[in-house]
Amino acid sequence: MHERWHGDNAARPLDGVLDREAAIAARDRLDELLKPAGSLGALEPLIERWALITGAPPPERVRAGVLVCAGDHGHVRHGTSLYDSTVSAMVAAAAARGETAVAVLCASGGHELLLADVGLVGATPPGVRDVKVAEGTADMTAGPALTSEQVDAAIATGAQLATELAGLGVGCLVLGEIGMGNTATTAALTCMLTGADPEHTVGPGAGLDAAGLERKRAAVRATLTRHGARLAPRDALAAVGGLELAALTGAVTAMRATRLPVILDGYAATAAALAAVRLEATAGERLIAGHRSAEPGHDILLGELGLEPLVDLRMRLGEASGALVALPLIEAAGILHRRMGTFAESGVARAH
Amino acid sequence: MHERWHGDNAARPLDGVLDREAAIAARDRLDELLKPAGSLGALEPLIERWALITGAPPPERVRAGVLVCAGDHGHVRHGTSLYDSTVSAMVAAAAARGETAVAVLCASGGHELLLADVGLVGATPPGVRDVKVAEGTADMTAGPALTSEQVDAAIATGAQLATELAGLGVGCLVLGEIGMGNTATTAALTCMLTGADPEHTVGPGAGLDAAGLERKRAAVRATLTRHGARLAPRDALAAVGGLELAALTGAVTAMRATRLPVILDGYAATAAALAAVRLEATAGERLIAGHRSAEPGHDILLGELGLEPLVDLRMRLGEASGALVALPLIEAAGILHRRMGTFAESGVARAH
Repeated sequence: MHERWHGDNAARPLDGVLDREAAIAARDRLDELLKPAGSLGALEPLIERWALITGAPPPERVRAGVLVCAGDHGHVRHGTSLYDSTVSAMVAAAAARGETAVAVLCASGGHELLLADVGLVGATPPGVRDVKVAEGTADMTAGPALTSEQVDAAIATGAQLATELAGLGVGCLVLGEIGMGNTATTAALTCMLTGADPEHTVGPGAGLDAAGLERKRAAVRATLTRHGARLAPRDALAAVGGLELAALTGAVTAMRATRLPVILDGYAATAAALAAVRLEATAGERLIAGHRSAEPGHDILLGELGLEPLVDLRMRLGEASGALVALPLIEAAGILHRRMGTFAESGVARAH
Repeated sequence: MHERWHGDNAARPLDGVLDREAAIAARDRLDELLKPAGSLGALEPLIERWALITGAPPPERVRAGVLVCAGDHGHVRHGTSLYDSTVSAMVAAAAARGETAVAVLCASGGHELLLADVGLVGATPPGVRDVKVAEGTADMTAGPALTSEQVDAAIATGAQLATELAGLGVGCLVLGEIGMGNTATTAALTCMLTGADPEHTVGPGAGLDAAGLERKRAAVRATLTRHGARLAPRDALAAVGGLELAALTGAVTAMRATRLPVILDGYAATAAALAAVRLEATAGERLIAGHRSAEPGHDILLGELGLEPLVDLRMRLGEASGALVALPLIEAAGILHRRMGTFAESGVARAH
């Protein structure tokens, strides 16, 4: 029984079916380990979920495929973001040069980083994959942000990029984004997918002040008035964008055909994942929430998906950075599960 | 200016004075990094605090000295714990054999683990340091758990052990404990040090059921009635014990003479740290909270100490395991602070 946890996971068929037997075996071992029952807390359901997805408990070292999709948003003209659209490409370029959070965490952790320009304004920066569907979205407050063809193209692009990363033999996929203004887009998408009010989905993003927050809330309200408050996922993505969100939706959907866990970074990635689950319910089975966003709408999405993030550090720089910071907790779970002794081996009495 | 972060910290004088200049330098660099201001969230005050204590921001790899003090508690005869006193020594023995959570996390992370029998019932297990002050405490509900001489001996022992670990060139001290029943002791200590009611300090520990919780709460109430609800720290430790808590108090106090951060594991270690701070206010300047305990009284202690834990995973197996799981977040903070580029280097525009 113990052998399967150390077996060659890559050799197992990618049948897209959850491995309930492996999850039960992982749970059984958890109950035998030299500790009070359940006392590894949140690490215990994490271990079970990892086994359910991959067929084995977490490894002691996780090498991740990190997909960071970048895009711009027409609504930033309304002052919905602290930064304007020129900054998205600058951040993507700096990430490609190894200077930003995602780049240094990937370099340090030995992860595969794929930066993708799905919808940046202007030229694709050096070192960033050019899979541009359009130069940013249209203004969601005034009309559809994307055509349905653009939505489909972005979804297909994200699926392709994620599949490419999965083919590199990584142990999980980490999803993040770069896109000035995309917390406003995410807030609107969250409202449309869950029925939440903008009061509960709009936050300060990268650091808006009170006046900026009011502008952002007004833009989201205008968007809901323009397009309707509840929409199906493809229609919602067309109404609000963004291209990087649609690409992440495609990435989540594509992972249904693999045994890879999908670690979500923050607000935008989680909204994209909820859109994927609304498209294909089984997409949710592979999700793990890395970092709890400071944005108030994130909890609404997590509740819909039944996820609890591993860490809550109030980080708000996107780029998958929160999920990457959480990865060592998965490794710790793997180390504890694989290496701890059992009551039977140790001769220690269980609780009476 | 950048040089100091990579300098030889060990060569700096151990003057016990906080390095405000280093903290300001770390803060200044945080503000220059290629990210929205403050967007590393809780990692930013962590980086500042680490620099304040050590003279440098966190390293990319932390090698910790891990002190786990073990002791037993006379009140377990009242059914205040899921396990009886024989289990403490069995767990300590299993830790020494490398089988428990703290042992596997230390082996995997390359940390120095020192298991100390300050007050176990019975013989000191092989591989555990014999610094036994007594074979467990007396029953706190019926009289003083410890004599004042025993309290002083345990404090001195903890100070000596921590100083020994500090001498091994580790980057921080991690404090944890093994002791069946010590969440009841910790609850009583928390009441005495803070004035909190047992209603808010008694939790299920390793996994008591409702009836057990009621027994535990009754024992803590009886203890407060017996000894008084508010006591000075040494008197409180004598009234309730335990020997492992007093030893951890000594360990925290001793670190005032070093540049080492002290990472607290959970409820018991944090109560011991508050006792240390009540003895010597400057002891609090070196503290970092690793893991938020599921015990309800932990938040009261954290509030008194002004600390916010790095992780909240509902772990409840003690042994410093929660703090060890949190250590990689400190490393991530170090990696981000040292390796990220700056606005000036990168040419990216700051927020307008």
